[in-house]
Amino acid sequence: MNEQNGMKPYVIGLDLGGTNSVFGIVDSRGEIKATTAIKTGGYQSAESYVDACVEALQPIIEQVGGIETIKAMGIGAPNGNYYSGTIEFAPNLAWAHDGKVPLAKMFSERLNGIPVALTNDANAAAIGEMVYGVARGMKNFIVITLGTGVGSGIVVNGQLLYGCDGFAGELGHVTMVRGAEGRSCGCGRTGCLEAYCSATGVARTARELLSTTTRPSILREMNPEDITSLDVSIAAGKGDELAKEIYEFTGHMLGQACADFAAFSSPEAFIFFGGMVKAGELIMKPIREAYDEHVLKIFRGKAKFLVSGLDGASAAVLGASAVGWEI
Amino acid sequence: MNEQNGMKPYVIGLDLGGTNSVFGIVDSRGEIKATTAIKTGGYQSAESYVDACVEALQPIIEQVGGIETIKAMGIGAPNGNYYSGTIEFAPNLAWAHDGKVPLAKMFSERLNGIPVALTNDANAAAIGEMVYGVARGMKNFIVITLGTGVGSGIVVNGQLLYGCDGFAGELGHVTMVRGAEGRSCGCGRTGCLEAYCSATGVARTARELLSTTTRPSILREMNPEDITSLDVSIAAGKGDELAKEIYEFTGHMLGQACADFAAFSSPEAFIFFGGMVKAGELIMKPIREAYDEHVLKIFRGKAKFLVSGLDGASAAVLGASAVGWEI
Repeated sequence: MNEQNGMKPYVIGLDLGGTNSVFGIVDSRGEIKATTAIKTGGYQSAESYVDACVEALQPIIEQVGGIETIKAMGIGAPNGNYYSGTIEFAPNLAWAHDGKVPLAKMFSERLNGIPVALTNDANAAAIGEMVYGVARGMKNFIVITLGTGVGSGIVVNGQLLYGCDGFAGELGHVTMVRGAEGRSCGCGRTGCLEAYCSATGVARTARELLSTTTRPSILREMNPEDITSLDVSIAAGKGDELAKEIYEFTGHMLGQACADFAAFSSPEAFIFFGGMVKAGELIMKPIREAYDEHVLKIFRGKAKFLVSGLDGASAAVLGASAVGWEI
Repeated sequence: MNEQNGMKPYVIGLDLGGTNSVFGIVDSRGEIKATTAIKTGGYQSAESYVDACVEALQPIIEQVGGIETIKAMGIGAPNGNYYSGTIEFAPNLAWAHDGKVPLAKMFSERLNGIPVALTNDANAAAIGEMVYGVARGMKNFIVITLGTGVGSGIVVNGQLLYGCDGFAGELGHVTMVRGAEGRSCGCGRTGCLEAYCSATGVARTARELLSTTTRPSILREMNPEDITSLDVSIAAGKGDELAKEIYEFTGHMLGQACADFAAFSSPEAFIFFGGMVKAGELIMKPIREAYDEHVLKIFRGKAKFLVSGLDGASAAVLGASAVGWEI
């Protein structure tokens, strides 16, 4: 008997990525009770994608006691809009790249009418930190996700900041370098934080430093075009000075950005999430130093700089499921 | 009989400025029923300042029917902290420049225990716009005050954004020009929005343009050190090309800043408040143009750019009184 006192003990979390769609059935303490996954691609329509999802979900729903034990579903998805429950113009999803797909409604209709909420992946990470992670008990914090892109989820007064249209919190696209010097960004503009501090930004910094200096580095043994942020991380781990400098540059840029974010929402903490955070102090130390150097005096020394408290492999699913608890 | 159905019909608003302290007794429609003022300076202690305020308030409180008709008091003050009800380290107030003065508590104790709330002047302006002005009905907007400094009040989900310590919304101190090129700012840092777009920033732009170019301008008839933003405004009004360019530069900087602010909180509107806004389209047009040029595509064309709807002379008192209604 999983249902006690009429409380439904589980939510479904869906981490909808460009490649994989990972599902977890999660309890209120963040324990994943059952999990499954399908490929995200290869579907001609949103309908056939949802069909495949629901088919994959059936066995794990049965495993926890049936749909009656499920309170809600939360989805973290690229270009997910919380207000409308839609995925909008997602460039990497064949069935959602030129319009709005009402994914929350479609899942709800196929899952006995349970409430379904959807948001973008960085917002899901922020809610995940608030419900299960290092932000428990915090009312004002910012999660910054460092991955292929730079995303963010901003919590203010205990609520996620969605703004007037559901798209607030695009901190990867504040301008860090103005004018002609700014790097081009995938968004079509120049100088964005993402162009410097994403995994691809880090690789780009590596190529720039290798081509504009003659300093020795084990990264020179590679074809410059093949260098990834992981290679930089491995090289830095081996003590490579140039690789360490790349992290210092990246962290310094992030710290300066956080100093501006403090002037906006004065958060209690900045929480960093994503593969790049595995570099630990290599990236966190320059972030803190640049922040203290650049932040307005009244904010100095106040904010904590934390690394995500969610388990890496399941963090995205946990974040998505947390969106379900918040409904 | 002013008190109907047990509702207290008035709040006291105090606009606490560096020079004058202006009081108004205001009804829920924003009509100022009575007003008075004292000089802010010349007091040795916060106690003697509050004494003088209460003495000045007595006649106008009697005029509206006595303290029983007063629901609350709202104060807009430099370095005012909403959470603690204190003024903290206000450089221009002799009795509050090196510590925390619990002004809200002091007024409440002297005014029959009515609730008293205090916030900084830009936040008061934002609440004023929400309660009486052009932001009525809006849940997400940013007020930017262009005066001696650049201040801001950010409203998110219908609530003022105070952050973890009461000091959120210092958008005058986001960094617009990084590195050695940035102008020095009164906050001790460089490149802040305030160093370019405050009244003093505009005067500085004028001096820079006059000294680095030989272009004709009626501003050349003045001693450069005496030029104020008002002189620039008058010259621009007369069609002076250099003066118009100064406004264009200023507006362009503000529009770029707003593009970053949109990535943060995606507001429905940006509302501009303060003397400089009297320049009208001279400043508003370049703001809109730079915003559209620099903002992330998903935000383009969404936000409104508005001028404060509060009557200039009484705007600050109205804003302060609105803080009282929000208690």
